[in-house]
Amino acid sequence: MSNTEIPTITEKLLTAKKAKGVTFTDLEQALGRDEVWIAALIYRQASASEDEASKLLQALGLSNDLVPELTASSVKGLGPIVPTDPLVYRFYEIMQVYGMPIKEVIHEKFGDGIMSAIDFTMNIEKEADPKGDRVVITMNGKFLPYKKW
Amino acid sequence: MSNTEIPTITEKLLTAKKAKGVTFTDLEQALGRDEVWIAALIYRQASASEDEASKLLQALGLSNDLVPELTASSVKGLGPIVPTDPLVYRFYEIMQVYGMPIKEVIHEKFGDGIMSAIDFTMNIEKEADPKGDRVVITMNGKFLPYKKW
Amino acid sequence: MSNTEIPTITEKLLTAKKAKGVTFTDLEQALGRDEVWIAALIYRQASASEDEASKLLQALGLSNDLVPELTASSVKGLGPIVPTDPLVYRFYEIMQVYGMPIKEVIHEKFGDGIMSAIDFTMNIEKEADPKGDRVVITMNGKFLPYKKW
Amino acid sequence: MSNTEIPTITEKLLTAKKAKGVTFTDLEQALGRDEVWIAALIYRQASASEDEASKLLQALGLSNDLVPELTASSVKGLGPIVPTDPLVYRFYEIMQVYGMPIKEVIHEKFGDGIMSAIDFTMNIEKEADPKGDRVVITMNGKFLPYKKW
Amino acid sequence: MSNTEIPTITEKLLTAKKAKGVTFTDLEQALGRDEVWIAALIYRQASASEDEASKLLQALGLSNDLVPELTASSVKGLGPIVPTDPLVYRFYEIMQVYGMPIKEVIHEKFGDGIMSAIDFTMNIEKEADPKGDRVVITMNGKFLPYKKW
Amino acid sequence: MSNTEIPTITEKLLTAKKAKGVTFTDLEQALGRDEVWIAALIYRQASASEDEASKLLQALGLSNDLVPELTASSVKGLGPIVPTDPLVYRFYEIMQVYGMPIKEVIHEKFGDGIMSAIDFTMNIEKEADPKGDRVVITMNGKFLPYKKW
Amino acid sequence: MSNTEIPTITEKLLTAKKAKGVTFTDLEQALGRDEVWIAALIYRQASASEDEASKLLQALGLSNDLVPELTASSVKGLGPIVPTDPLVYRFYEIMQVYGMPIKEVIHEKFGDGIMSAIDFTMNIEKEADPKGDRVVITMNGKFLPYKKW
Amino acid sequence: MSNTEIPTITEKLLTAKKAKGVTFTDLEQALGRDEVWIAALIYRQASASEDEASKLLQALGLSNDLVPELTASSVKGLGPIVPTDPLVYRFYEIMQVYGMPIKEVIHEKFGDGIMSAIDFTMNIEKEADPKGDRVVITMNGKFLPYKKW
Amino acid sequence: MSNTEIPTITEKLLTAKKAKGVTFTDLEQALGRDEVWIAALIYRQASASEDEASKLLQALGLSNDLVPELTASSVKGLGPIVPTDPLVYRFYEIMQVYGMPIKEVIHEKFGDGIMSAIDFTMNIEKEADPKGDRVVITMNGKFLPYKKW
Amino acid sequence: MSNTEIPTITEKLLTAKKAKGVTFTDLEQALGRDEVWIAALIYRQASASEDEASKLLQALGLSNDLVPELTASSVKGLGPIVPTDPLVYRFYEIMQVYGMPIKEVIHEKFGDGIMSAIDFTMNIEKEADPKGDRVVITMNGKFLPYKKW
Repeated sequence: MSNTEIPTITEKLLTAKKAKGVTFTDLEQALGRDEVWIAALIYRQASASEDEASKLLQALGLSNDLVPELTASSVKGLGPIVPTDPLVYRFYEIMQVYGMPIKEVIHEKFGDGIMSAIDFTMNIEKEADPKGDRVVITMNGKFLPYKKW
Repeated sequence: MSNTEIPTITEKLLTAKKAKGVTFTDLEQALGRDEVWIAALIYRQASASEDEASKLLQALGLSNDLVPELTASSVKGLGPIVPTDPLVYRFYEIMQVYGMPIKEVIHEKFGDGIMSAIDFTMNIEKEADPKGDRVVITMNGKFLPYKKW
Repeated sequence: MSNTEIPTITEKLLTAKKAKGVTFTDLEQALGRDEVWIAALIYRQASASEDEASKLLQALGLSNDLVPELTASSVKGLGPIVPTDPLVYRFYEIMQVYGMPIKEVIHEKFGDGIMSAIDFTMNIEKEADPKGDRVVITMNGKFLPYKKW
Repeated sequence: MSNTEIPTITEKLLTAKKAKGVTFTDLEQALGRDEVWIAALIYRQASASEDEASKLLQALGLSNDLVPELTASSVKGLGPIVPTDPLVYRFYEIMQVYGMPIKEVIHEKFGDGIMSAIDFTMNIEKEADPKGDRVVITMNGKFLPYKKW
Repeated sequence: MSNTEIPTITEKLLTAKKAKGVTFTDLEQALGRDEVWIAALIYRQASASEDEASKLLQALGLSNDLVPELTASSVKGLGPIVPTDPLVYRFYEIMQVYGMPIKEVIHEKFGDGIMSAIDFTMNIEKEADPKGDRVVITMNGKFLPYKKW
Repeated sequence: MSNTEIPTITEKLLTAKKAKGVTFTDLEQALGRDEVWIAALIYRQASASEDEASKLLQALGLSNDLVPELTASSVKGLGPIVPTDPLVYRFYEIMQVYGMPIKEVIHEKFGDGIMSAIDFTMNIEKEADPKGDRVVITMNGKFLPYKKW
Repeated sequence: MSNTEIPTITEKLLTAKKAKGVTFTDLEQALGRDEVWIAALIYRQASASEDEASKLLQALGLSNDLVPELTASSVKGLGPIVPTDPLVYRFYEIMQVYGMPIKEVIHEKFGDGIMSAIDFTMNIEKEADPKGDRVVITMNGKFLPYKKW
Repeated sequence: MSNTEIPTITEKLLTAKKAKGVTFTDLEQALGRDEVWIAALIYRQASASEDEASKLLQALGLSNDLVPELTASSVKGLGPIVPTDPLVYRFYEIMQVYGMPIKEVIHEKFGDGIMSAIDFTMNIEKEADPKGDRVVITMNGKFLPYKKW
Repeated sequence: MSNTEIPTITEKLLTAKKAKGVTFTDLEQALGRDEVWIAALIYRQASASEDEASKLLQALGLSNDLVPELTASSVKGLGPIVPTDPLVYRFYEIMQVYGMPIKEVIHEKFGDGIMSAIDFTMNIEKEADPKGDRVVITMNGKFLPYKKW
Repeated sequence: MSNTEIPTITEKLLTAKKAKGVTFTDLEQALGRDEVWIAALIYRQASASEDEASKLLQALGLSNDLVPELTASSVKGLGPIVPTDPLVYRFYEIMQVYGMPIKEVIHEKFGDGIMSAIDFTMNIEKEADPKGDRVVITMNGKFLPYKKW
């Protein structure tokens, strides 16, 4: 369904996670890593150390046979050019609507350069709100100034 | 340069801002609004009240003739399908790489639904770091559960 | 046929529905939900509660093994960028032809914001007409005003 | 701003409408037509009779010179393949998410065929709701069965 | 070969047709339908009644097991956005080259509206010509005037 | 409006045609050519002889200055990859839905080859029908068999 | 590898050709056809007579079971919109760079029309050159003048 | 008309060529270069020496002011991704249909490598034929073997 | 010509550079920067300090009015999705052909991460070679390891 | 994961390489070829001699059965039009940002022509740097001047 290509290993891990009733919070404790990074690992958008891979597989009740697949560098990027899934699309929309304003503000604060998406962390919190809970996402990326030469 | 279509009014406002040496921090104080929202207004991705429009124009030393343009609802979305500008592209990349992991985490925390990009605020901070300053972006969007009927 | 990707579970459910001769009206009564929502669930564009999933499977004479697949959050969006199926295309055409006029009218009635496609219901009726029956589709979405900050 | 191509005549008409403070409700009374159709006419997605064109121009305080432009058959469809404007995009999303479910329901109710987007009307209402007003859109299109030969 | 997606049932029917040496003229007589419509049915771009499906399967020496597949409403549209097959491409080229001239002539003859592709028939004849035989295609579609409301 | 690129000369000719109240039938008589070909010439999808160009310009009350533009070989093809105009789109849809069935029938009748879109004529007639007039389009193209070598 | 879709039969034929050590020159003699046409047949871009199919299969040491597949009219066009293979891409580049100049020269020499790609032959020769051998490709297509009507 | 972007200087040169009644054969004699190369120069797909530029301008009765524009290295490639002009499209079609067969033949004759489109010449001849004149295009490109390292 | 969008300021600077006969080597000496960076600045893919801007303008004989344009952060990325210019395309081809092999080698040498295109320098040299001079391009980018969190 | 199409043989070779713990440096010694070329061979973007294929397979502990697959000319180009993998994308970005500046510098140094991507070698080195190691990529391609004729 949709053109998003979900790796086979991802389906195995998510099925096991569901079957065992393990939450991302549980996995955070088992691995000592943030849930977003763990979800990225499960979708093979991040690579684990052998130790992290073992802990994840153990927490999901799976054998260590999958360690090599989890430690390998993967081809990243999950999907169609413009995502059709409404949740994912909203991040595309934020880029379309706020991309240039963000650029303007970052250039004023930091000069010409970019926010790294590699030296980068991301956190997702649930903020209780009587008018409806809110999703709070914090992105933290190193500013990389353009090098001159 | 690039296919990003920058509205004429945006160029006028940015030229005036540069000429007067006004910063976004100055504008925050003049309008009582966040700098990201103000940048979005300047790029016509947001619409001002008459009062906000007047204050912005005054702060930039421009006449009130532009008020109607700033208060009208605009056609939003600034650019090419896949952005070529490296700073903007990194947000596309974050969507490509972390979109599905974010989806997984949000669904676990909140159930089936999305983070609104309309009932939404965004904040950009500079975090000093001896290894290189960091860009910290906080997105705060209402969780919208799928309605059943 | 065509690039529309129909999930395997959808084919199972539709085959069972046809084999048992169950109509959407029957399913409306079995689930206490609208037929459009049920069709969306069958195409995995909506997620069921355990109870709704059970009722649907029972009504179609299928075992409860499929409950987990029906309650999981799915990747949504079914098809090619521009749909080739004539029935689906007409909704693309309505968006192309009437999208901006709708935008103009909504902005005048409600201000700057959007109609939610999440806090949203849809109803399809058959209106008898001697010159040819008519399809009447009612969409009902919460107006979401742009937040300022 | 954005790739939506807004005809010059549309800008003239909307500017006049804003300048005179005329609402769509006023135009409904002046023309005896629905506001959505009038907005479609203004965006040149519909063609007026000479009488309708005159009434519109008179209501907007414009001369009859524009009558020929308003009565001509126009090239329809306003925009980019996937719209970037959030309001317009939601209609694209509805097509992506609900297109196939709608198809399933219509085929069951009517047989193989389509809802016409030509022999078609559309209505937009504001439904007051204490939890937030709602946009109610009613589409009414003739069912066209596939002809066999 | 090419991105045209040919349904499995189409391959079965065409293989049987070739194996039995049945021509479209034979099928016209067996079904009492035009060969183009029958070819559209074989490619699942049209839906048969139970009777038509039975007759087609009988004429091709196939069992009635395929009746349900032939009577179901199908997802229509067979191919890539721009067809690469030279025969099919020529129809794309005709649309590119003559689309606007046709529009001009139809609007003058009929007013604002379209030729229906649903209430529509098509006929293909071979016209003998000493300089090379000619393909004569006759399309006959109901004119649908734009409704005003 | 829309991405269809209408040549400047086309607009001049159509404006003159409307101003003088000349119909395509009138032009057929003036030029001794079919109205579809004349419309194609006006849209610069066909090239005129000097004599044809003169007659057209005379019939439209324009000076002979435009003769060179009308006799030059032009770059053909008028529009976006997938047309958004509903009338033109229906021809795209016919190609999507009936392209492969047509191919099947032509190959059976003629062998491997194509219908030429160059050694090609097209005719548009209005067929009166009490249930709604019909557009009858006749395409006549030379069959070109694939050459072997 | 790459999006070029190579038919299964092509792989069978090429594997047999390699296994038997048969060259295109051998096949030219076996079939009495040019090697380019034979390669086109192997890629199912051309259709064989029964006799040609038999000779090809015999030359490759394959059974006659594949005759029907080789004599059927195929869906033509092998690949992605813009080819990524460098050898094939160069022909795309020639079209991009020299397409309009070729058009200019052909129109001057022949008038308005095209070079047929159907009534068309192609020849590839190796021209020895001390500075590096050269590929000489001769295309020979019938000029088709635009018909007027 | 069409998305082909024709440089302003090209239009100037072609207008002058038409006005003076100069043919490509005349230009071949004036410059001592092949007509295809000259047409490529006119479309700014090739760069002239100062001497060649002068001779071309003189032959067209234009002043030497345009010399710098004709000697500069230009950005090459003239058009839309898939050309809509039927003459140019046929070269796209040849690439789609014969690209892989050509690749197969060249690899057998020369080994792994490509035909250069830079160390490349092209010739266009008119071959008289009682059944219709033929366009004969000869491409001659250096074979470039893949370097190993 | 081509879809590459060359900024107006770039044209001014290049025209002045040509008129004054200034080479990149001259500019390297005037600015104390590498010619590739200077060319990037001229195409507004890099931003200058006030001092660098002044020196460049002085070297080109232009007034300091253009300083603000050269010091502003620009929207980067110059062209069409797939470049049509043969020189630029070769870099696209290198990415298509060698992208994954490069990825494999970098991951083995450095671990999971990327080569920065921001903390990045590039150098172009001419290497004399009797068989034909060679272009030697050296890219030097900081390795950025994926951060875990 | 991602649309990059990795050939089956590539997966076999990489799995064996990982299982045996063989590095690219080991392979360089075994084959007497550069690691980048070897990686290109593994991804079937280059073709081996029989000897090179044998040595590679032996080094990886695989049988000689794969020799024919490694010596065949392959269809080259590995991936989606715009790569989503961040490491590969950076090369796309370099082309977008520095493509035109590189073109400008090469034309000044060499004249009108291109850097060959066929008569081409590439080298990747790790440059130790206390602020973070750097990737140094050296591309060396023959300059090909445009031929005139």
